[in-house]
Amino acid sequence: MVSGPVADRVTRIAAEMGYARSSLAYGLRTGRTHTIGVVIPDLTNPLFPPIIRQIEKTLADRGYIAILADSDNNQKNETAIVQSLMSRNVDGLILATAHRLDAVVSTIVEDHVPLVLVNRTIDTHSVTAVINDDEHGIELAVSHLVGLGHKSIAYLGGPQDTSTGHDRFLAFKKLMREGSFKSHNDLILNCKAFTEAEGHRGFVSILEKRRKFTAVIAANDLLALGCYDAMAERGLSCPADISVTGFNDMPFMNRLSPPLTSLRIPHDEIGKQAAALLLERINDVDSKVRTVNLLPELIIRASTAPPKSRK
Amino acid sequence: MVSGPVADRVTRIAAEMGYARSSLAYGLRTGRTHTIGVVIPDLTNPLFPPIIRQIEKTLADRGYIAILADSDNNQKNETAIVQSLMSRNVDGLILATAHRLDAVVSTIVEDHVPLVLVNRTIDTHSVTAVINDDEHGIELAVSHLVGLGHKSIAYLGGPQDTSTGHDRFLAFKKLMREGSFKSHNDLILNCKAFTEAEGHRGFVSILEKRRKFTAVIAANDLLALGCYDAMAERGLSCPADISVTGFNDMPFMNRLSPPLTSLRIPHDEIGKQAAALLLERINDVDSKVRTVNLLPELIIRASTAPPKSRK
Repeated sequence: MVSGPVADRVTRIAAEMGYARSSLAYGLRTGRTHTIGVVIPDLTNPLFPPIIRQIEKTLADRGYIAILADSDNNQKNETAIVQSLMSRNVDGLILATAHRLDAVVSTIVEDHVPLVLVNRTIDTHSVTAVINDDEHGIELAVSHLVGLGHKSIAYLGGPQDTSTGHDRFLAFKKLMREGSFKSHNDLILNCKAFTEAEGHRGFVSILEKRRKFTAVIAANDLLALGCYDAMAERGLSCPADISVTGFNDMPFMNRLSPPLTSLRIPHDEIGKQAAALLLERINDVDSKVRTVNLLPELIIRASTAPPKSRK
Repeated sequence: MVSGPVADRVTRIAAEMGYARSSLAYGLRTGRTHTIGVVIPDLTNPLFPPIIRQIEKTLADRGYIAILADSDNNQKNETAIVQSLMSRNVDGLILATAHRLDAVVSTIVEDHVPLVLVNRTIDTHSVTAVINDDEHGIELAVSHLVGLGHKSIAYLGGPQDTSTGHDRFLAFKKLMREGSFKSHNDLILNCKAFTEAEGHRGFVSILEKRRKFTAVIAANDLLALGCYDAMAERGLSCPADISVTGFNDMPFMNRLSPPLTSLRIPHDEIGKQAAALLLERINDVDSKVRTVNLLPELIIRASTAPPKSRK
């Protein structure tokens, strides 16, 4: 440490050099910027705004501000964004972009920057994460469809390098093996991204196999919208020809034609807990790493009905 | 300015005090933080994510990062957010929250912080803004409804302290006076906020007047969704009983039941131009103040049809 007079001299010279009293300067002095970086994979996915809103509110209550960045489902962007945020000395990061093996996450951890993952986690579970119980969600969707009388069910999954994509897929395969319904390799496809365009492409490819099925479980709502599009193009009706379920119950899913049966995740709770756990970690670097697993709830709407043969 | 050896001494002492080379320090030295504050009134309004995404992309291409904040349609929050952003020495601000008379905007201008308004502007037009041609939009909606044969048209407006709320309302009244259709004070109501809840409340109040009309122009899509809700509660059908038009054509409006006829605004263009104009202003404080007026386009969908009497 420097002595009082020297510190005074530094302050005076700094002032002469044009330094102003500011949050930036305060941040440099205290080592805190009261700024949190939040990185999401797709801002136009309506899943994220309610989560971000709660993150911002929880942070604001404690005098923190969020820098939000959108990686556009691109890992290169993600790396550049995280570097840029870290060079701005953010006090912590919340990432909704995690991959199961994630070099960016490793870098952040090595640099001792407090970090919380949201929605997705990494395979090692070595970073605090607020996620949904993906297996339970898929169980709810399957048992709803089986209960309606569906015997042959297709599955349109997400990218396998994400925990959400992977865990939902594993849950579907496990239930299939347990034998309450049938599926087939022709009826199971994992998309490259959780987007409407990928969902459309994937479901067209399943439909073109011309194998019989009466319901499809989509691993998220955007993929389910892609199923709607593929069916509309082919003159297929939902749910008369094929029942469809989504995952996330993002805003507006109740207003679709037909309204989508989906798994509601607690958006507000996810945002609140992610922000609170990050602040805990900022104030105590030794706080326990944990995975908060929130339970989704099945919201049954008009996109699911008994198969034709049963009506 | 200080001499070389003194500057060296400051650098050394700063290092001893734990200062690290960082964007913050760079920002203090150059007076630039390459950080832009973006304030929006409601992140969960799907109008904003596509605009923000383009703002972020345009800024990122030039090495700038956006700090996003959501004022939740609350002017007190807005003031606190802008103060917080300014204390972080942002290089400029983009506000989607402007009111026609706006003390926050005045403060920013007085502090010479580069500023661009987006979606809404102020009455004096003394700040660069990227907005939509609201009058032209309402003209398109009215002439579509009149063309379908509607004679009596209701209007559900937005808050009158915003340029969007005010200009759309003035446009409707002007067209009404020109006499191509009829309306009535009972059929015209301006809501306190551009939200679904306010739209619902407002349209219930219009319906309760029990005056005849066959179509309603809502000043934005969220208000139109409120109309849908109010009609569903009363067993009224859209468009059979009442045709509905929105404004913004935000994502998912094509998927509603019924799909909403709305005014498409060029989301990407708005975001790009706002970011580009702000960067121009940051690099040249004397750059010309201008209002960019982008033209909306009417997207006709199933929420509008000829009135019953004409069918």
